Amino acid sequence: MKVAILGCGFIGGSLAAALRRRRLASSITGYDIDPLTAARGVALGLLDASSSTAALAVQGVDLVVLAAPVGSIPALFGQIAAEIGPDSVVTDVGSTKAGLIGAARAELGRAFEHFVPAHPIAGGERPGPEAADPDLFEGCTVVITTSAETRADAVLRVEQMWRSCGARIAQMDAAEHDRILACVSHLPHVLAYALVAHIAGRADSERVLSLAGPGFRDFTRIAASNAQLWRDIVLANREAVGSELQELIAELQQAQAALAASDARALQELFELASRTRRAFGERQDGP
Amino acid sequence: MKVAILGCGFIGGSLAAALRRRRLASSITGYDIDPLTAARGVALGLLDASSSTAALAVQGVDLVVLAAPVGSIPALFGQIAAEIGPDSVVTDVGSTKAGLIGAARAELGRAFEHFVPAHPIAGGERPGPEAADPDLFEGCTVVITTSAETRADAVLRVEQMWRSCGARIAQMDAAEHDRILACVSHLPHVLAYALVAHIAGRADSERVLSLAGPGFRDFTRIAASNAQLWRDIVLANREAVGSELQELIAELQQAQAALAASDARALQELFELASRTRRAFGERQDGP
Repeated sequence: MKVAILGCGFIGGSLAAALRRRRLASSITGYDIDPLTAARGVALGLLDASSSTAALAVQGVDLVVLAAPVGSIPALFGQIAAEIGPDSVVTDVGSTKAGLIGAARAELGRAFEHFVPAHPIAGGERPGPEAADPDLFEGCTVVITTSAETRADAVLRVEQMWRSCGARIAQMDAAEHDRILACVSHLPHVLAYALVAHIAGRADSERVLSLAGPGFRDFTRIAASNAQLWRDIVLANREAVGSELQELIAELQQAQAALAASDARALQELFELASRTRRAFGERQDGP
Repeated sequence: MKVAILGCGFIGGSLAAALRRRRLASSITGYDIDPLTAARGVALGLLDASSSTAALAVQGVDLVVLAAPVGSIPALFGQIAAEIGPDSVVTDVGSTKAGLIGAARAELGRAFEHFVPAHPIAGGERPGPEAADPDLFEGCTVVITTSAETRADAVLRVEQMWRSCGARIAQMDAAEHDRILACVSHLPHVLAYALVAHIAGRADSERVLSLAGPGFRDFTRIAASNAQLWRDIVLANREAVGSELQELIAELQQAQAALAASDARALQELFELASRTRRAFGERQDGP
């Protein structure tokens, strides 16, 4: 299987590493909007070659993986549309789905039926191909959100690739995916960014941060994420994120009212529900 | 040095373990509102003995450490006040300071000058003496918030104990401590609890949580914390927490407006400020 990976950062690089280790690709060609990033992917042994354009990278390959930031994927559809062969499959790793599917439908034309929208739910703290991890997708969930037009054989090829990399497949509607991810990923990023920006805006922010403990470190880790990437993700999913944010603000206003009234019972109920839920989740996810 | 530890959970147990390993105490007596917890501390070798009342535990000791939850400390002051000898020192590990100092002034009477309010900024995921970690305080900051009445020799004894356990000392005003901790600890807990409670309230919460990734796990880890303990902490510091929460809600409303208006620039600025601040913080705190 000849593979092209468009976007050779942490996720693209990790997929290349996973395919390599499992000998799932006869060749991997990379393209990145920053040619140096693709060149580093080659130097690291993740890629066999790098191409100077997306169109060149995808010529004659069996599988194209769009692993660029969500905001850059629509432009890539346009650049590769003419090069998608009748037996080629295109997939992506974008964190939002409905908007990308709309862009794919508009840009890919006839090749739209070869496009399998996918989202491996995985992440890391460090960017770039240097941080690539061949085991990143072991045990992770890959959500696939097909349309009525998507070819079944294309879906099968993408599912097989992810399963071979150790992932589980979950199929769902793109709109449901976007609502759920707004809840468990996009909204937490907005909250973490807002909290750290709030602290950064204080005159005594250095002193404040000097007293931050391990809970704060974990809670705000995602606030170190790439600002432009996440700006594009929340904009691409702005309806769902906006609606979740509105509900969360209402929840916080209730907590504030309970606090102002010293309503110990209301606070206890809120905290108890969360604590019970997070513990049960932790037992399932964190393992023993 | 004879030590009494009132409250034999994770923090009290870790302090006992740290004192033991460094041979800093000739004896450690424990008291816990749950006699079984103190008994487990003895069985684990953390404590030499357990007492059935707080008053008995502190008789004849040089140092009393109140390591109970913030909500339970005021009652302990009343129980031990009559037993504090002229050369005894009392300290605590509570996460809020101004309220506890007020309670100590009211309850301890003449012994108030022997009370050194302190807060080791450390935490763990598992409760109970079984999780005690003798190295928990290595490199951690202990904030000491003395009053005008606090005896200098008492402060010295408490500082020496914490330094011997590997901690750094920071002296500050109790009100400043409470404002800062509202920012970096109490507010994050409220946010994490509110988010998880929000998700728990959805009809499809199981499905939503099944798609949560590593970012969500880190972000919500503190939402597994003991609900009653944190209810008491935010209530004990309700003015500062309420004020921080109000400002954070305003920040979130601005983010929501930017999202609704697809204002990429405003979102980018917010996220960029947070990302830059958190990365600089991470480089200082997480180490290389």
